[in-house]
Amino acid sequence: MADRSLGLPTDIIAEAVERALREDMPWGDVTTDALIPASAWCAAHFVAKQAGVLAGLDIARATMLRVDHRLDFISEMADGDGFASGEVIASVKGSVASILRAERVSLNFLQRLSGIATLTRKYVEAVAGTKARIVDTRKTTPGLRALEKYAVRAGGGDNHRFCLSDGVLIKDNHLAALRKLGKGLPEVIRLARAGAPHTIKIEVEVESVADAVVAAEAGADIILLDNMSLADMRAAVEKVAGRALLEASGGVSLETVAAIAQTGVDLISVGKLTHSAPAVDISLDVEL
Amino acid sequence: MADRSLGLPTDIIAEAVERALREDMPWGDVTTDALIPASAWCAAHFVAKQAGVLAGLDIARATMLRVDHRLDFISEMADGDGFASGEVIASVKGSVASILRAERVSLNFLQRLSGIATLTRKYVEAVAGTKARIVDTRKTTPGLRALEKYAVRAGGGDNHRFCLSDGVLIKDNHLAALRKLGKGLPEVIRLARAGAPHTIKIEVEVESVADAVVAAEAGADIILLDNMSLADMRAAVEKVAGRALLEASGGVSLETVAAIAQTGVDLISVGKLTHSAPAVDISLDVEL
Amino acid sequence: MADRSLGLPTDIIAEAVERALREDMPWGDVTTDALIPASAWCAAHFVAKQAGVLAGLDIARATMLRVDHRLDFISEMADGDGFASGEVIASVKGSVASILRAERVSLNFLQRLSGIATLTRKYVEAVAGTKARIVDTRKTTPGLRALEKYAVRAGGGDNHRFCLSDGVLIKDNHLAALRKLGKGLPEVIRLARAGAPHTIKIEVEVESVADAVVAAEAGADIILLDNMSLADMRAAVEKVAGRALLEASGGVSLETVAAIAQTGVDLISVGKLTHSAPAVDISLDVEL
Amino acid sequence: MADRSLGLPTDIIAEAVERALREDMPWGDVTTDALIPASAWCAAHFVAKQAGVLAGLDIARATMLRVDHRLDFISEMADGDGFASGEVIASVKGSVASILRAERVSLNFLQRLSGIATLTRKYVEAVAGTKARIVDTRKTTPGLRALEKYAVRAGGGDNHRFCLSDGVLIKDNHLAALRKLGKGLPEVIRLARAGAPHTIKIEVEVESVADAVVAAEAGADIILLDNMSLADMRAAVEKVAGRALLEASGGVSLETVAAIAQTGVDLISVGKLTHSAPAVDISLDVEL
Amino acid sequence: MADRSLGLPTDIIAEAVERALREDMPWGDVTTDALIPASAWCAAHFVAKQAGVLAGLDIARATMLRVDHRLDFISEMADGDGFASGEVIASVKGSVASILRAERVSLNFLQRLSGIATLTRKYVEAVAGTKARIVDTRKTTPGLRALEKYAVRAGGGDNHRFCLSDGVLIKDNHLAALRKLGKGLPEVIRLARAGAPHTIKIEVEVESVADAVVAAEAGADIILLDNMSLADMRAAVEKVAGRALLEASGGVSLETVAAIAQTGVDLISVGKLTHSAPAVDISLDVEL
Amino acid sequence: MADRSLGLPTDIIAEAVERALREDMPWGDVTTDALIPASAWCAAHFVAKQAGVLAGLDIARATMLRVDHRLDFISEMADGDGFASGEVIASVKGSVASILRAERVSLNFLQRLSGIATLTRKYVEAVAGTKARIVDTRKTTPGLRALEKYAVRAGGGDNHRFCLSDGVLIKDNHLAALRKLGKGLPEVIRLARAGAPHTIKIEVEVESVADAVVAAEAGADIILLDNMSLADMRAAVEKVAGRALLEASGGVSLETVAAIAQTGVDLISVGKLTHSAPAVDISLDVEL
Repeated sequence: MADRSLGLPTDIIAEAVERALREDMPWGDVTTDALIPASAWCAAHFVAKQAGVLAGLDIARATMLRVDHRLDFISEMADGDGFASGEVIASVKGSVASILRAERVSLNFLQRLSGIATLTRKYVEAVAGTKARIVDTRKTTPGLRALEKYAVRAGGGDNHRFCLSDGVLIKDNHLAALRKLGKGLPEVIRLARAGAPHTIKIEVEVESVADAVVAAEAGADIILLDNMSLADMRAAVEKVAGRALLEASGGVSLETVAAIAQTGVDLISVGKLTHSAPAVDISLDVEL
Repeated sequence: MADRSLGLPTDIIAEAVERALREDMPWGDVTTDALIPASAWCAAHFVAKQAGVLAGLDIARATMLRVDHRLDFISEMADGDGFASGEVIASVKGSVASILRAERVSLNFLQRLSGIATLTRKYVEAVAGTKARIVDTRKTTPGLRALEKYAVRAGGGDNHRFCLSDGVLIKDNHLAALRKLGKGLPEVIRLARAGAPHTIKIEVEVESVADAVVAAEAGADIILLDNMSLADMRAAVEKVAGRALLEASGGVSLETVAAIAQTGVDLISVGKLTHSAPAVDISLDVEL
Repeated sequence: MADRSLGLPTDIIAEAVERALREDMPWGDVTTDALIPASAWCAAHFVAKQAGVLAGLDIARATMLRVDHRLDFISEMADGDGFASGEVIASVKGSVASILRAERVSLNFLQRLSGIATLTRKYVEAVAGTKARIVDTRKTTPGLRALEKYAVRAGGGDNHRFCLSDGVLIKDNHLAALRKLGKGLPEVIRLARAGAPHTIKIEVEVESVADAVVAAEAGADIILLDNMSLADMRAAVEKVAGRALLEASGGVSLETVAAIAQTGVDLISVGKLTHSAPAVDISLDVEL
Repeated sequence: MADRSLGLPTDIIAEAVERALREDMPWGDVTTDALIPASAWCAAHFVAKQAGVLAGLDIARATMLRVDHRLDFISEMADGDGFASGEVIASVKGSVASILRAERVSLNFLQRLSGIATLTRKYVEAVAGTKARIVDTRKTTPGLRALEKYAVRAGGGDNHRFCLSDGVLIKDNHLAALRKLGKGLPEVIRLARAGAPHTIKIEVEVESVADAVVAAEAGADIILLDNMSLADMRAAVEKVAGRALLEASGGVSLETVAAIAQTGVDLISVGKLTHSAPAVDISLDVEL
Repeated sequence: MADRSLGLPTDIIAEAVERALREDMPWGDVTTDALIPASAWCAAHFVAKQAGVLAGLDIARATMLRVDHRLDFISEMADGDGFASGEVIASVKGSVASILRAERVSLNFLQRLSGIATLTRKYVEAVAGTKARIVDTRKTTPGLRALEKYAVRAGGGDNHRFCLSDGVLIKDNHLAALRKLGKGLPEVIRLARAGAPHTIKIEVEVESVADAVVAAEAGADIILLDNMSLADMRAAVEKVAGRALLEASGGVSLETVAAIAQTGVDLISVGKLTHSAPAVDISLDVEL
Repeated sequence: MADRSLGLPTDIIAEAVERALREDMPWGDVTTDALIPASAWCAAHFVAKQAGVLAGLDIARATMLRVDHRLDFISEMADGDGFASGEVIASVKGSVASILRAERVSLNFLQRLSGIATLTRKYVEAVAGTKARIVDTRKTTPGLRALEKYAVRAGGGDNHRFCLSDGVLIKDNHLAALRKLGKGLPEVIRLARAGAPHTIKIEVEVESVADAVVAAEAGADIILLDNMSLADMRAAVEKVAGRALLEASGGVSLETVAAIAQTGVDLISVGKLTHSAPAVDISLDVEL
């Protein structure tokens, strides 16, 4: 992954860490405050308990340092790296009390984001050798979108539009509402072109090969093929013939993704990368 | 669920909705702004695409109304209710543009929280007939803890401590650090009792039956049995003999939870309720 | 302007109004508190003191109602409408004290945003009859970008990318840095295509007709012609021949914009729409 | 300017910079992330493209360092200094990617604030040799008042009251509302004196020489002469005879300000210092 | 108090209430959630348990309504009114659960602010018949200054400057630092006049009658007599002879304040109004 | 106090300091900006003007460093230490202007929190030799609860529940509302046990010895004896016989607290520790 910047702004990290720590320790750590002397020191290791792909290391570091800026955090790998069960991901040295206070929050970030990167990597590997790119959706955890889309990139996937403000995607509901007003697909695409900023591509969702062709002829930049059969996808690829990017979407699974990729589509969007990726098991082992 | 308040403060809902909408529409909806006239009107229905347990309906409503306070939101069921695939959960009527702007965020909340409630319900049903209560952990999504713990309650589970500030849990790492300083289990429990507020129970993690007995004799209120065999859990139940609550923890699954409950423990904590529950599939069907 | 939604999210208005009122009245209005009885009532009229184009009416209304939700605000025109000197834009009725507290902040918004809309309208009218669209830049007042880009739309202009996150614009400095690393224009465009989200167009800045042709052949979606002569712009239009959108930029004025538009470029970006538009003179006339 | 502190609190700078950067890069810089390697290094220079007076250097520095605290920022002049076209204002060295991310925001602050300082300096120089001080108004950009009033000071002007909370200014509308309630100018001034904090001066707006005299006799500390002729201002100066400060206001321009100052007024307030100052052209020239 | 607006901005109330409720109920009310059914209804009365002066009623109302906007809040008196032990201040009707959740926070505001108003009233009454005004200081509870200064007004006192930004007070430490730089009292006053906004009065602290005279001759608007004897205060009053307002400060108590007022000073500032006023005992009596 | 961590999270300190400084200097220090040159340097000492117990030193330090991170702050004692009148608590060296800007806010924190610690210490000393612990209540200053409860710990007291979210306290109003619904004390305690998290103890308020016995038998963990006579408290101690903790509450004073402690109760809660502790007089003496 070394030749691509994964690009997560530091203020997004800082704000997420601040909010999570405040949530986990609104007015003190009653256990540690009662028990652990300030002078106690240890080293601790983030250890993978199962294989996966790393994402969130900078956030784990930021969490530790936000609790205690004197902690020493040493990364053993980088986001995007694969790890095996038992491997040490990073170490942290310093005050026992500080490390215990930051442990859960740093693990919560690391486990969730590595879970997303790990699942993404599986999809990316499943389509290796095709031209299809695996992309995410807006089906993210409320409040964590930038982090979760970052984890998709760490896993080797690509990002779809970030939000409603930066991408045009004309969905079935838009089309149905406009059809009732007497506006057909070509006119809708023309209206979107006129009304949206010129810097943004126009994507439209279609449910038939015929509509895909209409959309391409009307100048759509990207066409989302919604829940199409493999045969229809192949037909759409053939008939659109490069005039627009084609995106497969709907019910994609690890079992079906390779076949979808082999139809020749450009993009495959997978909601479960972010809404249903299980956490990767990582623990913090304290060495005393 | 009707005889128990699920208790989610309105300001927590408001803040979560505000942040999620700002994230999804920082400066406008370029698609809808370009295409949908302000006068277009529709009804839309939140429809379950698979069976599950509902959580998050007030948040979905708050999301719709935050985007457009003139929308009419009609609940067809309540949080904690089970639903079958195809059932209508709620409906919303009003401006097409407003409903489309709020659609994704309201679904993101509803799918994730219902996912947690659904998984929790499965665990709760698996231990029915025993005295064991299913409880959550602090392994929650950063920034969404109050919502996720609410979803656990909606699923019929109970909440463990909310955070580091409101519960004493002396974990293996605390004990190891204190052992190095010459302090054994009984003294640690005594120190916690003296140092923590008197309103909070003292919970301690142990790895052997012998330590469970020591902890009970030293006055621990709750004893966490970490990754113990069923036989050891049974022995701990017998020997502690009601002097403390016993909590089973570590690697609990739907396959093993019934057997664990039958050992006689009081509480079973399950991290994956919040860190790995898959989203429940719910969609918004617009009727024009 | 009636056939296009201008699309300003209500939470952006609310936050801007809140911040401005807090800035102008952090702990009370010492004059009005000392002098004006709560029972005094008046009508007041926002009156244009010079001709212009309106923008910001919803913000003026939100300001008045944020100070006192019992005020009655009546719009006489809509954003995007032109007005002559002396025309009444809107009226507000209710407590004298409340209206005086909200007066300055509501006018500050209205005068600045109408100033931007008014200047934009002059540029738009100057290129009428050509296909060129007038677009804004990122040279906006820090903290007010969404409002100022809205005012550009109210004036009939179009928006360029909102920020660094939603548009690719490869500028001379990017190209220079990459040239030092041995990467030429075609490779840079290919890298941007591979690394940026597929939903966003690739724009590149060039300083010569030759580079414009290279960029078009390398697949750039938009080519920014930086400070080119009219002759060069015409040559670029001819040689790129519709393979990419062409944007003229740099030192555009009301005197030169028509000639630039006549070269056949698609877009003309004008920084001074937002960084140097003088305020339009509007006052609040209280009728007692 | 060296003998006067310009006094801008660091938390105001920090908050303005944070908000502006968040606005310009909510979730990453798609261009730079895709193209510029982290190791690329450069020096860059803030260069004036026209003559002016500097304001905002600390904010430009804070912007650069907020993006990347390892950048090296070297000031070549100080706020309040005049510069000629072509002069280097400051330099910054370090990561190309960081400098490009911070470029636009730092320039937006610098150009706007220097624009205000430059216009203010022109007014100040126009009244040189008289005792009149040039002061600003509350007609500032919403959310940027502290920065804009700072820029006025950098230009050599003085600040009028900051907001409604820290200064009494009884305007025509206050007087009209109170007249309807049977209260004349002397009683109003007495009421203000009794009701407002004793630390704040009482200023009242008048439209005739006669009222200026009444106000002075009633104990007003400052009298605002609204849109008066030069002859009337001279008469007011003569008849008030130093019993109160006199402030000229209304439609002041660079053409008229010297004559106004020569009437002997103490203060001349100029709204356009902040609401209509054109940006000064400054660019960031990257040296590779 | 009916003829003076007490002037507390609604956003200051809203923010204080929001913060206090969030502090007292970060994620639910575990007692009420577990016990009180949503349908239970009651009336409750804010009852004085000792005599005092009321302040904070709007904040108590805002607290109740922020928790549950359906509650019915009925005021029986107004801020600034005196009350006897046993009197009902206000009543609230509606959901038992909501009222119990809001009880403590609304009482915390009411008891503290009424405590300040009550103590202030005692000082004001002690100086009745003299021209001296009782004023507060900046010795307020961090974060509550606007509320506490409002309570002083409710008690019949007056406000000194709000903060460092809106008033000039040259204290002994300023003078000492400037003396070391060779600047004497008259020059310091001249510098302050030149450097501070013209709308703000210049106050200076002196420790001798001689310095008070120097300050008055140098044009100070207000002179703070720090810890002076009654005889010295009388001498200062006589010698300054109305050229400046005189403020007595330092160790003022209810026992000494009348004698101080009788010296003829204009203002007496009392830190303990805000830093040491005991809470007034008020309770919420629920009627079922 | 050295063997117990007082445990105040740094982000709580940072937020309180930020808010207080913003409140005291929203846009500059007009006095210091006008007068004090940036180069002036001094040492200053926090000196006790009366005896007391220290609390808030880290907050005073944070305030000084937030204004100017180059100041040098040297503590001479630690929170929890007693001091005599005249003792130096801490010193600060650096820019005169910075120290004067931070003086008032740092003292406001120090005086209030030391006031609470001082009063708490008096209560703690009054019960020395008994087993009773002095605990605080929720009657704290809105927005400052974490700091004020910290000050109680610094004084040697213990904390009661922090807020409604982390402790069950069934008060008379809860019981009255439930009695109307036909639920008696034992059932209420059972309901609370079932509905509240298992980590939290159940406390119930009673007004008679008989009810105390009922509560103990029903399994209450803590019983609050509300306004009971000494005789009744002794009876409750005898009859509850260790089955629950007993807390005395209501009208406790320094005169009565020793006798209450001698009844054998475990806890004595004192509202006035936080709602009516007078500030301790501490000043900042500048040495030039």
